[in-house]
Amino acid sequence: MVFRVTVNSAWRATRTLWLLVLVSLSVCICVCRASSTQEDSAMENIVTEKKAEESHRQDSADLLIFIMLLTLTILTIWLFKHRRFRFLHETGLAMIYGVLVGVVLRYGIHVPRDISNATLSCPVNASPATLLINVSGKFYEYTLKGEINANEVDDVQDNEMLRKVTFDPEVFFNILLPPIIFHAGYSLKRRHFFRNMGSILAYAFLGTVISCFVIGLLMYGCVMLMKQVGQLDGDFFFTDCLFFGAIVSATDPVTVLAIFNELQVDVDLYALLFGESVLNDAVAVVLSSSIVAYQPQGDNSHTFEVMAMLKSFGMFLGVFSGSFALGVATGVFTFTKLRDFPLLETALFFLMSWSTFLLAEACGFTGVVAVLFCGITQAHYTFNNLSPDSQDRTKQLFELLNFLAENFIFSYMGLTLFTFQNHVFNPMFIVGAFVAVFLGRAANIYPLSFLLNLGRRNKIRSNFQHMMMFAGLRGAMTFALSIRDTATYARQMMFSTTLLVVFFTVWICGGGTTQMLSCQRIRYLSNPLLGKTGSAVRRSTKHESAWLFRIWYNFDHNYLKPILTHSGPPLTATLPPCCGPLARILTSPQAYENECQLKDDDSDLILTDGDINLTYGDITVSTDASGAHTSSGPAFAGGATSDDLDRELTYGDHELVMRGTRLVLPMDDSEPPFTDPHHRLRM
Amino acid sequence: MVFRVTVNSAWRATRTLWLLVLVSLSVCICVCRASSTQEDSAMENIVTEKKAEESHRQDSADLLIFIMLLTLTILTIWLFKHRRFRFLHETGLAMIYGVLVGVVLRYGIHVPRDISNATLSCPVNASPATLLINVSGKFYEYTLKGEINANEVDDVQDNEMLRKVTFDPEVFFNILLPPIIFHAGYSLKRRHFFRNMGSILAYAFLGTVISCFVIGLLMYGCVMLMKQVGQLDGDFFFTDCLFFGAIVSATDPVTVLAIFNELQVDVDLYALLFGESVLNDAVAVVLSSSIVAYQPQGDNSHTFEVMAMLKSFGMFLGVFSGSFALGVATGVFTFTKLRDFPLLETALFFLMSWSTFLLAEACGFTGVVAVLFCGITQAHYTFNNLSPDSQDRTKQLFELLNFLAENFIFSYMGLTLFTFQNHVFNPMFIVGAFVAVFLGRAANIYPLSFLLNLGRRNKIRSNFQHMMMFAGLRGAMTFALSIRDTATYARQMMFSTTLLVVFFTVWICGGGTTQMLSCQRIRYLSNPLLGKTGSAVRRSTKHESAWLFRIWYNFDHNYLKPILTHSGPPLTATLPPCCGPLARILTSPQAYENECQLKDDDSDLILTDGDINLTYGDITVSTDASGAHTSSGPAFAGGATSDDLDRELTYGDHELVMRGTRLVLPMDDSEPPFTDPHHRLRM
Repeated sequence: MVFRVTVNSAWRATRTLWLLVLVSLSVCICVCRASSTQEDSAMENIVTEKKAEESHRQDSADLLIFIMLLTLTILTIWLFKHRRFRFLHETGLAMIYGVLVGVVLRYGIHVPRDISNATLSCPVNASPATLLINVSGKFYEYTLKGEINANEVDDVQDNEMLRKVTFDPEVFFNILLPPIIFHAGYSLKRRHFFRNMGSILAYAFLGTVISCFVIGLLMYGCVMLMKQVGQLDGDFFFTDCLFFGAIVSATDPVTVLAIFNELQVDVDLYALLFGESVLNDAVAVVLSSSIVAYQPQGDNSHTFEVMAMLKSFGMFLGVFSGSFALGVATGVFTFTKLRDFPLLETALFFLMSWSTFLLAEACGFTGVVAVLFCGITQAHYTFNNLSPDSQDRTKQLFELLNFLAENFIFSYMGLTLFTFQNHVFNPMFIVGAFVAVFLGRAANIYPLSFLLNLGRRNKIRSNFQHMMMFAGLRGAMTFALSIRDTATYARQMMFSTTLLVVFFTVWICGGGTTQMLSCQRIRYLSNPLLGKTGSAVRRSTKHESAWLFRIWYNFDHNYLKPILTHSGPPLTATLPPCCGPLARILTSPQAYENECQLKDDDSDLILTDGDINLTYGDITVSTDASGAHTSSGPAFAGGATSDDLDRELTYGDHELVMRGTRLVLPMDDSEPPFTDPHHRLRM
Repeated sequence: MVFRVTVNSAWRATRTLWLLVLVSLSVCICVCRASSTQEDSAMENIVTEKKAEESHRQDSADLLIFIMLLTLTILTIWLFKHRRFRFLHETGLAMIYGVLVGVVLRYGIHVPRDISNATLSCPVNASPATLLINVSGKFYEYTLKGEINANEVDDVQDNEMLRKVTFDPEVFFNILLPPIIFHAGYSLKRRHFFRNMGSILAYAFLGTVISCFVIGLLMYGCVMLMKQVGQLDGDFFFTDCLFFGAIVSATDPVTVLAIFNELQVDVDLYALLFGESVLNDAVAVVLSSSIVAYQPQGDNSHTFEVMAMLKSFGMFLGVFSGSFALGVATGVFTFTKLRDFPLLETALFFLMSWSTFLLAEACGFTGVVAVLFCGITQAHYTFNNLSPDSQDRTKQLFELLNFLAENFIFSYMGLTLFTFQNHVFNPMFIVGAFVAVFLGRAANIYPLSFLLNLGRRNKIRSNFQHMMMFAGLRGAMTFALSIRDTATYARQMMFSTTLLVVFFTVWICGGGTTQMLSCQRIRYLSNPLLGKTGSAVRRSTKHESAWLFRIWYNFDHNYLKPILTHSGPPLTATLPPCCGPLARILTSPQAYENECQLKDDDSDLILTDGDINLTYGDITVSTDASGAHTSSGPAFAGGATSDDLDRELTYGDHELVMRGTRLVLPMDDSEPPFTDPHHRLRM
């Protein structure tokens, strides 16, 4: 395959370039077309039907711009992947293209004033959701779109074109984010995730809260300073600062993780980063909505009030646990018994995931959080019940949806830099924000890592900590949260600043990942192809003194898995004899059939192609219990013979050993699978 | 597999029932919730933000109803498939559930009057697309939703709930129809489609126009009669009648085809029905928009005018050929060279298909038609360039989208029977419409079949004609066209009648397919499993004296395929020697590699699992040249030995024989692959 690629590359490159030109042309055409149809419409008789048609055409053309942007991004990504450029990830690329199109739309296209806008100034004393207008006997129905600043009223009429390519911010929350978040949950590498669960939860919950408050306080100081200097043109309260802290605390290291994946960097670092970023999105969403909900009795007083704070805190707990429970519940209850009909199964799976989101939203919880936990639960239980065909289909479907949604958000992000009309770029605020974001991340990672290392067997080394600090990119969630409400001056300033933070982190931190890895001496494969073709072995170290994990694992494996999936030991074996009849009812017939293969063989089922497996050379190093300092050295140093490798592989397979019917955990020190303590180190 | 299904069925059935109860419960809960949140909002202070949140919750709950409906449909379909019930197809089922939920929404839920609607009656003399309302200094933006009848103004305020579950009709055209139509084009069984191309085009183009005018004329007679009797309460012009004729001429035998597929009914009948239904959708869409565009100079005069008619006719040709060209062009230009990255490839494929739709809409053509031809072209060319992984992915993706969209439309159809608020059920019109639809279909099938049989080698037998007549179901396209505009009295009456036509044909004709097949003595497999496990052979009869097809096939195989795909002979071999350099540039390097396997092996690539292959018993009958009367007899009558079967298989494989580098068509009589004319009949 590799050979053929090289042979045909010249021929392909020409074709691709030709394609690029073609696509760019189409973009130009459709953009021009977009402006010309508007001119036509202005000259025509104003008939409602005609206008609706024109507006539909216009919408199609606008959407086409985005589709073309995505197409262009895909083609360029392919070129990059093909040539192994790693300094720019697809999301960074999508942003660049977005910025370019934004510039064209902003400065390149002149749209004449649309005469069909009218301002009514007759006395109405409410703003109903639906409005009926009586125009000479005919009734027209209007729906409320939102409030507009008094000073923007002229803009509304001027910049119809720019407003057209601006989406309703709710689109992000209700259409684009759910597949991204679900995919994150669904593709969570569960084996390593659960092994590092304690640390991940600490970073995600404690860390996000710390980061939020640190950033909030620093920004409040900055805002106070700005007020002193007279740089502030509007209100900016402490809650606004905290809100800013919450939204920029949601990290999204998609760029970094993609590179980690490709270079097969340490699994634990990957699990920590990925797990943290997945969960802190959920925390940030709920945190930000709790901060918005903080309202002391006397409205607009913005003073501190214990009751209001407690209410906010209660809301945080309530919404988070509610969303969590709902997501887990629907995830668990999606039994699919339609194994013989993969299409039906996949459709059902998709619909159940979507309905989790909608149900959570309808109940007043946070759909995104519910969908995340639904994804995690479905990956853990439902996935095992799916037919192999459906397992592929669902994985591929959500992978595609995630890819499209992610690139769409990032290219839209680039676009808004120029098309958004209420940018407030305040240099002091921006500098303050960058410093605060940096310090907030540091206050999250370093102290928590220190505390966690007190309890962990497998310490989080300082180079790992630096890498985690560096990988605090901001992405889709931060953007979606900041664009959701841009009504006030403070929110507009936050939005503009957030955009810059996202751009900077994605381009600079994302682009510098490889350099940072080398600099921190974190080992990776310089030629990933070697790692993929060579034999990779599973890692089998004890990571944390995870009593929490151990309890959970036993409960999960002995009771939950048998009830909810066809795998695991039958309940008749794990429940006490007195519960016999109940156990027989709850156990699926398949579980008996599968009884022979009782290893936890599903724990790695959701691994994608680029799954991170450490090669042998790395194992020798990191299974060394006091690993922190032995890590330097060449990546393929371990001069292991193939005998050793075989033994290691066998060992890895026997890692989870059944003792009777109750599973004894491999990381349980009291009963190591091999009694010789030197066995590992010897290898 | 079959055995396991039987063993576990009891256990599964109980679980499924439990699931059904759970799902129904959720539906009830969310419906109740939908009404309760509205009550809360009425009592609350009217704050814009709160209201927006409430409305968002409400929307989520509404959408949830549909998701739950789909889930319920899927579960019941599974139960039906599992138990091999064939009398009710999933779409019919979706409609039934839709009707039930419609009844509940209409009569089961009491929604208090929403006080937040207001009617403005201040003097405005236009209905702009965007409206700014000045409410005590604050500006609110409103967007135009549409015109409302004067006598409905009160309804608007009363039936907020029912209006909430009513989608913008454009959703059907821009979101739900495209995947359905694309999937139809993409999964067109090309081998048999191209062999029957002449007949299919005749039925689709001539037939649809005939049907449209026959129905239009009959309905005009009916309307005249109603006017005489005084049954008509509003205007109903001849163009309205023609429009009705156009929309009910779009057949959608999805139910019938599903049963054909399962029972493996004759491939030709399948190809004729499927091809006709796919293409006549396109014809009907363009035809109906041309009829709407027919406007004589003096507006509203509704007289006959040659110029306006010519303009309409020109528009039909222009829009159809424009959409066709656009679809084919984007289909052809979607080279995908990203074979190494299936995700990118699938995403690109999806985006290109979507952009075809948008581009066509932006240019004023018909997106649905463009997407159809894009699908056909992509199946024919682009599909061959995809990596095997992407071939699966795209097929599965569009299969899923098609499945969801189709069932959504049908369940929505059921819902609107009760939730649509401007139904005009006129018994005379309805009876007239049923008669007209029946006669229109007859005037399409029988005369055209007679004419086509004059030219066809393999006659369309009378039982096939009856079956085609019977299989004229109306479905998604008819519904989407009729709901698109329900502003006038005539359109409302049409919409209500169309709904009934769809219900009747889907339930009665769809449900009676198996009976009709037996009644018409069209052979099928009584046990489909036999056919799937048994060896199936390809058919190799000459169908039409297809000079058109032959020319096309030669051109396609010798020039288009080599240029557009990696298969086929290299151009250097098929072009005259003088074009050597050009040929070398245009031929892909892979084509040389593939030169050895020059059979047209891609012609069956897009066959789905349930592909129709006739078993040996059927071949003996239908290869009999004067087949029309030898068709009666038991389905597995052919007492063929396995020797004969082998010979037939070999024969089928040698069907496309290369002579030098130019392909000689197998159906070319002058050079039959085997010179013994009795060879076939002997078998």
